[in-house]
Amino acid sequence: MKRDDFDTWSMVELDAVEAALDAWVPRDAPADLGEAMRYAVLDGGKRLRPLLVLAASLSVHGHRDAALRASCAVELIHAYSLVHDDLPCMDNDVLRRGKPTVHVRYGVAQAMLAGDAMQALAFEVLTPPGDVVAPALQARLCGLLARAAGGAGMAGGQAIDLASVGLPLDEQGLSDMHRRKTGALLQASVLMGASCGTTTTSQWLGLAAYGEAIGLAFQVVDDILDVTQASATLGKTAGKDLDSNKPTYVSVLGLDEARHRADQLRRAAHAALASSGLGDVRGLAVLADRVVDRDN
Amino acid sequence: MKRDDFDTWSMVELDAVEAALDAWVPRDAPADLGEAMRYAVLDGGKRLRPLLVLAASLSVHGHRDAALRASCAVELIHAYSLVHDDLPCMDNDVLRRGKPTVHVRYGVAQAMLAGDAMQALAFEVLTPPGDVVAPALQARLCGLLARAAGGAGMAGGQAIDLASVGLPLDEQGLSDMHRRKTGALLQASVLMGASCGTTTTSQWLGLAAYGEAIGLAFQVVDDILDVTQASATLGKTAGKDLDSNKPTYVSVLGLDEARHRADQLRRAAHAALASSGLGDVRGLAVLADRVVDRDN
Repeated sequence: MKRDDFDTWSMVELDAVEAALDAWVPRDAPADLGEAMRYAVLDGGKRLRPLLVLAASLSVHGHRDAALRASCAVELIHAYSLVHDDLPCMDNDVLRRGKPTVHVRYGVAQAMLAGDAMQALAFEVLTPPGDVVAPALQARLCGLLARAAGGAGMAGGQAIDLASVGLPLDEQGLSDMHRRKTGALLQASVLMGASCGTTTTSQWLGLAAYGEAIGLAFQVVDDILDVTQASATLGKTAGKDLDSNKPTYVSVLGLDEARHRADQLRRAAHAALASSGLGDVRGLAVLADRVVDRDN
Repeated sequence: MKRDDFDTWSMVELDAVEAALDAWVPRDAPADLGEAMRYAVLDGGKRLRPLLVLAASLSVHGHRDAALRASCAVELIHAYSLVHDDLPCMDNDVLRRGKPTVHVRYGVAQAMLAGDAMQALAFEVLTPPGDVVAPALQARLCGLLARAAGGAGMAGGQAIDLASVGLPLDEQGLSDMHRRKTGALLQASVLMGASCGTTTTSQWLGLAAYGEAIGLAFQVVDDILDVTQASATLGKTAGKDLDSNKPTYVSVLGLDEARHRADQLRRAAHAALASSGLGDVRGLAVLADRVVDRDN
């Protein structure tokens, strides 16, 4: 898949993801809850995780409906984590994806509930009635997602983040935090996509290594963008980490070394794909470049 | 099962639930997160939902390991909902199960994260690696739990609750709220237990009707206890709903009529069990009485 082909493919896939989220995130959840959930997840975001699921599934000739459900489920978990992360008790952020954050628009309590309901909805989406998705695959996808979202994954990373403000984390501590906080869900996106088809052990390990590398690269680049980009480009408040005295790859390594690290990780991701022995990994290859080359 | 037999059975089962939760709620989740999760879920609560799962499973000769996992998963969802419900942005409660609430002990941000991680953990517990629980059953349990916890269930009920303060809800509006807020998870407990074995359609429908009746009865009794019991007996702040001008069955129906309604629902639950055609429903029958006769 060349970059132009990728652009066409990803445009088609993203339309499918938007349509599926539009159908699955309920309009009719009571008392503004559905509205708050839809505000949080529709029409926004880069949809990197859904694309990773779908590209990984493509590389293993995976089940299309299962991969679409997995891609929406991962995005729901990601979107819920942003809603909770933006709350006053956490980052207290007012701008996200260029719009007022959910709690600014709907109130703190409703934002918390919307996040809670979005986490549950992710598992609803993965467990459709009937056999649209084979029950064993449903169980596997639920297991991968739950582990990436929970205490050993995303929520655990957030807890370290919370505890680390003002503390002198070294690169190892920082990596451990980000492997959980953002890396686990990015890697799970790849592995959930891979689960929609069949893989050999070495293909699976190659995809796992790819997922780990881009997961970390994503955060290194996030930290770089936080100091080099304006809020308007990012769609969220820039310079936030610096202001709140949080350790970042830039504060720990310096800007040049952080850029070098991002490039190392990009190369590691490509190497993992090459070693996986999978046929068509071009979508995943382009996504690795996207993760590093993005400006928001 | 006579009441004495039930007491023996439930004591053994509750020990198993405590041991399983102790094993499955991680000590080592980072930065106090595991500690906060354990504080929220261990050594406390009536464990009504786990007992419903296990009694329903017993009535259908269900798979023991699956039922134990389902019972812990339901309790994790229940416990997480209490943690979030107690937060300052929601009920702002400081006492729960006779102890300071999680946010009082660990801070608001950590309490929110602990709740988030507990929801994820519920789905981790339902999806063990390997075939301890048949994958199709894992998928079914995840689906039932997710739907009971999400926008159409518990979180949706909380949203109505939030929006209803000071509003003149009638009994129908109140029932709709509670069917979602507490009823959905209580009914799901019964149906998850039933899923661990095999049922005919009429058995399934009987258990669903039983679950619905006790779900509503539970809330009616909760509202009665809120005005008749002291905080020390309840283990949480009494009179809270009245103070916060929330509609309750007592405020809508009056105390006598609310008591009458609880008794009607108890009888409906017993009738549903009798009509189900299931062999041994005595555990479920005792639990229906417990729901109505409890004093905390």
